[in-house]
Amino acid sequence: MAGEEALRARREKLLGRNMSLFYEDPVHLVKGEGVWLWDADGKKYLDCYNNVPHVGHCHPRVVEAICRQASTLNTHTRYLHEGILDYVERLTATFDESLDTAILTCTGSEANDVALRMAQAVTGKTGVIATDFTYHGNTTAVSQLSTRMPPVGGYGGHVRHVPAPDAYRPLGGEGGAAFAAAWAAKVEEAIASLQESPFGFSALIIDPFFANEGFPDLPENFLVPAVAAVRRAGGLVICDEVQPGFGRTGTHMWGHQKAGIAPDVVTLGKPMGNGHPVGGVVANSETLNAFRKAFRYFNTFGGNPVSCAAALAVLDVLEDEKLQANALDVGAYARQGLQNLAEKHALIGNVRGSGLFFGAELVLDRAEKTPASDIATRVINGMRERGVLMGKLGIHQNATKIRPPMPFSKDNADLMLSTLDDVLGGL
Amino acid sequence: MAGEEALRARREKLLGRNMSLFYEDPVHLVKGEGVWLWDADGKKYLDCYNNVPHVGHCHPRVVEAICRQASTLNTHTRYLHEGILDYVERLTATFDESLDTAILTCTGSEANDVALRMAQAVTGKTGVIATDFTYHGNTTAVSQLSTRMPPVGGYGGHVRHVPAPDAYRPLGGEGGAAFAAAWAAKVEEAIASLQESPFGFSALIIDPFFANEGFPDLPENFLVPAVAAVRRAGGLVICDEVQPGFGRTGTHMWGHQKAGIAPDVVTLGKPMGNGHPVGGVVANSETLNAFRKAFRYFNTFGGNPVSCAAALAVLDVLEDEKLQANALDVGAYARQGLQNLAEKHALIGNVRGSGLFFGAELVLDRAEKTPASDIATRVINGMRERGVLMGKLGIHQNATKIRPPMPFSKDNADLMLSTLDDVLGGL
Repeated sequence: MAGEEALRARREKLLGRNMSLFYEDPVHLVKGEGVWLWDADGKKYLDCYNNVPHVGHCHPRVVEAICRQASTLNTHTRYLHEGILDYVERLTATFDESLDTAILTCTGSEANDVALRMAQAVTGKTGVIATDFTYHGNTTAVSQLSTRMPPVGGYGGHVRHVPAPDAYRPLGGEGGAAFAAAWAAKVEEAIASLQESPFGFSALIIDPFFANEGFPDLPENFLVPAVAAVRRAGGLVICDEVQPGFGRTGTHMWGHQKAGIAPDVVTLGKPMGNGHPVGGVVANSETLNAFRKAFRYFNTFGGNPVSCAAALAVLDVLEDEKLQANALDVGAYARQGLQNLAEKHALIGNVRGSGLFFGAELVLDRAEKTPASDIATRVINGMRERGVLMGKLGIHQNATKIRPPMPFSKDNADLMLSTLDDVLGGL
Repeated sequence: MAGEEALRARREKLLGRNMSLFYEDPVHLVKGEGVWLWDADGKKYLDCYNNVPHVGHCHPRVVEAICRQASTLNTHTRYLHEGILDYVERLTATFDESLDTAILTCTGSEANDVALRMAQAVTGKTGVIATDFTYHGNTTAVSQLSTRMPPVGGYGGHVRHVPAPDAYRPLGGEGGAAFAAAWAAKVEEAIASLQESPFGFSALIIDPFFANEGFPDLPENFLVPAVAAVRRAGGLVICDEVQPGFGRTGTHMWGHQKAGIAPDVVTLGKPMGNGHPVGGVVANSETLNAFRKAFRYFNTFGGNPVSCAAALAVLDVLEDEKLQANALDVGAYARQGLQNLAEKHALIGNVRGSGLFFGAELVLDRAEKTPASDIATRVINGMRERGVLMGKLGIHQNATKIRPPMPFSKDNADLMLSTLDDVLGGL
């Protein structure tokens, strides 16, 4: 404890104030393996939060790939190297045929920053539509998509926000088609507004799983009418797959495949290199060539042989350990466990998600669906005290965010569920 | 050769057209060690170009640090971890006392994207001054500083360009003070123009060594009057140390120290992790806290334990192998060698640089100083054919860019010089 106080003081001195830290009692981690993390006192935590170590913390095959390539060659892409070609070939093979080329970056933020410019290059326009509770990254341009804090100098005026879809409180009523039509109408309004502006309409950017918005269980083909509206207006659909990608939802490799839509541009980040800084943009070759013609873009570290080796190892492990199937199986089991807890704890208003991205929305009142945001904070802190790490998110910040490394097992789910039962019981 | 053709075809198919590649006959690299690179046919190249593998390609201590940490723990900074603190402490100890905190990113582009916002947070203004031949990175916001290609939607109107200082053809005449005053007057004009605009004046961003502009040998204290003008106007000075930093210039750890100025914000990139994707922004704590208050910023991979381990190993090797002193010593020796070649080859108009960033400006005519840009292209291709990798840069794209890994020796310099003698003799 004294050690942690000293660490926090050093942190504020060296990294500044207001640098975010999880939990009332922050965790001082020293070791990770699979779905487990250890703190400096040797206490073990079940990691139900981190999607970055996608195939498990410190997976030996990813570590081995990094070490092997880092000790052989690490350089930029202005020389020829097979690493990036082998990786992009493997990666694009997991997409529809139309998504056949890629640009590699170092972060998902950089990927979205490029994706927005791809849409500009294709359309000659700069207006963008995003949801009002989304997050696509931290660059100056990408931050303009967020509504959380107006930037110095103000917003650029080229972004229109549509309401984040909330299947628990659906726009347009309960019917799937009415909800989808109501949301598509919001997108159409935003398109019209941009078309009347000096910016014009270039793209709709969404996480097709709406992870930050609270991962709503949307009706089948919910996005289809909105995507059709975008296409009619000559805009591009950018799918940010930083969260649902790489098989996390269990049913599909990519969130947009699950949603039944075919985007023009797909962006990748966090889980791609199991923690090694790598991101990317996948598009059809015409879109990518239009970008490369309209903008000069070179990324020194992007696509370096070590990053590609790490990313390729992630694909290998995903396949060999059948982790997408595991996500489907364990995710369904864990959601059923949450449903069972809902019978006991009235606080659980809605259980939802897919594969290994799921959780419960906590409400004060099931009829009114009043968000229990403060209680959600107490719950995740209580879980942390009992050795289970998870987060919260969503429009009302009242949904537990359970998004563990992909080798998460039914035993792990049982531990998480029994701990949650304890914490909810002790509130 | 057939293999290379196939690689290039795969590359265009998977990575798109117009992705830059060095040399008429691109190099297919497979291995690196120290200052050496090997291609797929086993041919060995002396690397006189790459500053990213700062302490040498695949330095065993950096590789070991990466492997050790990657197999122990790799996570984000919302948990407590000593790695980032140890690194930032060591890093900031190399700066003046006023530069005492840091934000870690994954690339130099991300670092400059943050630095511009730091200046916005402190001043409440958004106007920026840069030189007309600079490059500070690839994000949408940072690309606005470049003059090379107007972006879709046009420039934001908030950037003013001053002429890149050219000591070989000095503004205001030959005298150091007159040149410095003339350049400062350009900066003052730009400040006035921004102050009259809706944007106001937030910062001057420069590489204090003006690497991309052709690394001019500037008179002592050249930047002092311009920096004073920025301060009088309430603006910040951002020094982009992506190229001159980490001891490369031999005389100082940082380019701004060499230039005799104290910036408000310093940005770091390429050499920081010897190729591992890591960048950073160093500032005083008030500036950093102002940024963290005005903007929400979190970088998932930024400051992760593996990146910090790699970056710390770079500082260790720099110190233990006395690489800054080596840069000073070998750089002076190699520049003298270029001067000797100038006696034989009239094409060499001006030899300049510092430490292990140096080169010769090639001219058709020494009196008129007519840039020999096309010949410079032939020279670097000729060097590549003979097994020495270098580049070209500068306002007229006629300066050889010699910027090798820091363990570059006098023997390596001799090989580069004799090869250059050959190539120039064979033109």
